Amino acid sequence: MDFNIAVIRGDGIGPEIVNEAVKVLDRVAKKYDHHFNYTDVLLGGASIDATGVPLTDEAIDTCKASDAVLMGSIGGDTTKSPWYKLPPQLRPEAGLLKIRKALGLFANVRPAYLYKELKAACPLKDEIIGDGFDLVIMRELTGGLYFGERKTVEENGVLKAYDSLTYDENEIRRIAIKGFEMAMKRRKILTSVDKANVLDSSRLWRKVVDEVAKDYPQVSYSHMLVDNCAMQLVKNPRQFDVVLTENMFGDILSDEASEITGSIGMLSSASLSATKLGLYEPSHGSAPDIAGQDIANPIATILSAAMLLRYSLDLDKEADDVEAAVQKVLEKGMRTVDIMSPGMTRLGCSAMGSAIAAEI
Amino acid sequence: MDFNIAVIRGDGIGPEIVNEAVKVLDRVAKKYDHHFNYTDVLLGGASIDATGVPLTDEAIDTCKASDAVLMGSIGGDTTKSPWYKLPPQLRPEAGLLKIRKALGLFANVRPAYLYKELKAACPLKDEIIGDGFDLVIMRELTGGLYFGERKTVEENGVLKAYDSLTYDENEIRRIAIKGFEMAMKRRKILTSVDKANVLDSSRLWRKVVDEVAKDYPQVSYSHMLVDNCAMQLVKNPRQFDVVLTENMFGDILSDEASEITGSIGMLSSASLSATKLGLYEPSHGSAPDIAGQDIANPIATILSAAMLLRYSLDLDKEADDVEAAVQKVLEKGMRTVDIMSPGMTRLGCSAMGSAIAAEI
Ligand SMILES: CC(C)[C@H](C(=O)O)[C@@H](O)C(=O)O
Ligand SMILES: CC(C)[C@H](C(=O)O)[C@@H](O)C(=O)O
Repeated sequence: MDFNIAVIRGDGIGPEIVNEAVKVLDRVAKKYDHHFNYTDVLLGGASIDATGVPLTDEAIDTCKASDAVLMGSIGGDTTKSPWYKLPPQLRPEAGLLKIRKALGLFANVRPAYLYKELKAACPLKDEIIGDGFDLVIMRELTGGLYFGERKTVEENGVLKAYDSLTYDENEIRRIAIKGFEMAMKRRKILTSVDKANVLDSSRLWRKVVDEVAKDYPQVSYSHMLVDNCAMQLVKNPRQFDVVLTENMFGDILSDEASEITGSIGMLSSASLSATKLGLYEPSHGSAPDIAGQDIANPIATILSAAMLLRYSLDLDKEADDVEAAVQKVLEKGMRTVDIMSPGMTRLGCSAMGSAIAAEI
Repeated sequence: MDFNIAVIRGDGIGPEIVNEAVKVLDRVAKKYDHHFNYTDVLLGGASIDATGVPLTDEAIDTCKASDAVLMGSIGGDTTKSPWYKLPPQLRPEAGLLKIRKALGLFANVRPAYLYKELKAACPLKDEIIGDGFDLVIMRELTGGLYFGERKTVEENGVLKAYDSLTYDENEIRRIAIKGFEMAMKRRKILTSVDKANVLDSSRLWRKVVDEVAKDYPQVSYSHMLVDNCAMQLVKNPRQFDVVLTENMFGDILSDEASEITGSIGMLSSASLSATKLGLYEPSHGSAPDIAGQDIANPIATILSAAMLLRYSLDLDKEADDVEAAVQKVLEKGMRTVDIMSPGMTRLGCSAMGSAIAAEI
């Protein structure tokens, strides 16, 4: 089959890791006789350098006309890069927020999975890890504080900043449905996280989640306050299957959950819309300090490409193949430097991509 | 000297743990020839049961007329207690928010300290813990999302909830000053946490913190994004000394930091105002499931009483004495069940309070 994939190479290590994901996709195409047409799209720092803005309307149009978007990480060193001298709405991250909104990517799926082979990298004690853990944060991505109105004004000589957090029941319902659907495909446990003892938006969140839950009687679900969830992730990550939450809480909790695996270089993410169109990127950042050295771990991006195959192109078998290939190189002891441990074989970024492609 | 202390016994284990803190304060009074006049004040569930509201104006007046407020934890089981059938503004937590605002308690100090003796309880691996860690979250407590306007309305048949997050430069400046002052008394490292790549309030936060920092050239300070901070607390808690942040981020990060010690039953907190008046309470909750069994750990409340002596009554030596007594019982192997480990002596709540008092 023929598919159009928009490719955002991004900043820092972005281009290197995207290369390896494309290498793996090419191998999939060859094996299964698909054809992937890649179109490069600029976003973030690379777009600022080329066009003056972090995302152009043309770039958005190209993404909209594609079946899926594959992205490397974007942004630079916020204290050193000239991009961060620009006004906020012209910085790299503004491009990311803009594309999320423009493509309607309201559902951000971030797995936090501990590979048995990488248990040593996990910061938690063995008693807590047990056999490992496997959870997914389902984060609402186009509402809440991220997209509310904001302003900074001087009132009686005093500067005052305003941000606003709004959610309507439809926004909550569609992400809740995604969360429960995800739970149905997994261990059927859903934890909805909010701050209902303080926020009106959280009380509406809880009400709507309760309504949606009625359609999923097989899912055992509960509510948890966000502060408690930040504790429970450390105390006992194995209790979680799907964690459903709003945008800002999801930002914080998904990063905490990633770090709890100790191997964030392995963690993919998918941002999904109401159609098949989705954007796939690693959970980690653009690591400008190690860019261009061929030492970055491409696995998070490769696993993001697997999610792309699964969710946007409906190529489940192909996605399984990519995931199995990653598992195999780990079993064979191949490691990039970030997940290296004694007795393993150290590979660079490109060699790791080739090794994974070779297993397909 | 003579001091007036308002005492909020609270709900769940609140009364038991407050008893032990009072026992320790009485011992301090005797040793140093002070006189503490205690006045009971109702807040939370106990107040709802007695008066129908979680905090009366009289209760506020009593607190205002005191030198300090000592508090146990408040609230109940949110799924079972009838308090949570009430409208949000009549629930236990609403009383807590109200007293924070009424007493102007804008600075919440939450230490997260790993006692050498309790290393086994820490969920993090030994390589990460090293010699232990010792950090303080300085959380803004009377602004931001907690106290913004909020409403839930139906617009064209769709329910929509609004919360708002505002900070003015004065609110930011006074908490920043508290943070830097705290850093000056400690290891002189301050990490200011915000989400400046998204929020206007965070950008104003950063600007004001930069200004305040100029008055503290000896403090080495930096900015960190909240999602990154949630990761760094797990990855390397030893990098932190004082973490300065706004209300909601502080709620989440302070609970995460507490859990990272693995011994939240040991962690105190102080909520400070522009005057000497402050409110002191354990970091943990009211644990209704173990209430009345004499097994709760009173140490967090006892250490909160030590902070009360130090910050509100200016009795530094007395505060040192209480902290040293806690250290001594730990060294002697005395443990409540939550921090129990093989070979140690298990004590109940009351026996632990007595043991600590006996060391003074
Ligand atoms: C770069 C930033 C705006 C973004 C976010 O907060 O959503 C990032 O942290 C993420 O989680 O994808
Ligand atoms: C009970 C709740 C409103 C409160 C808060 O969020 O501030 C609590 O979690 C705390 O941290 O003291």
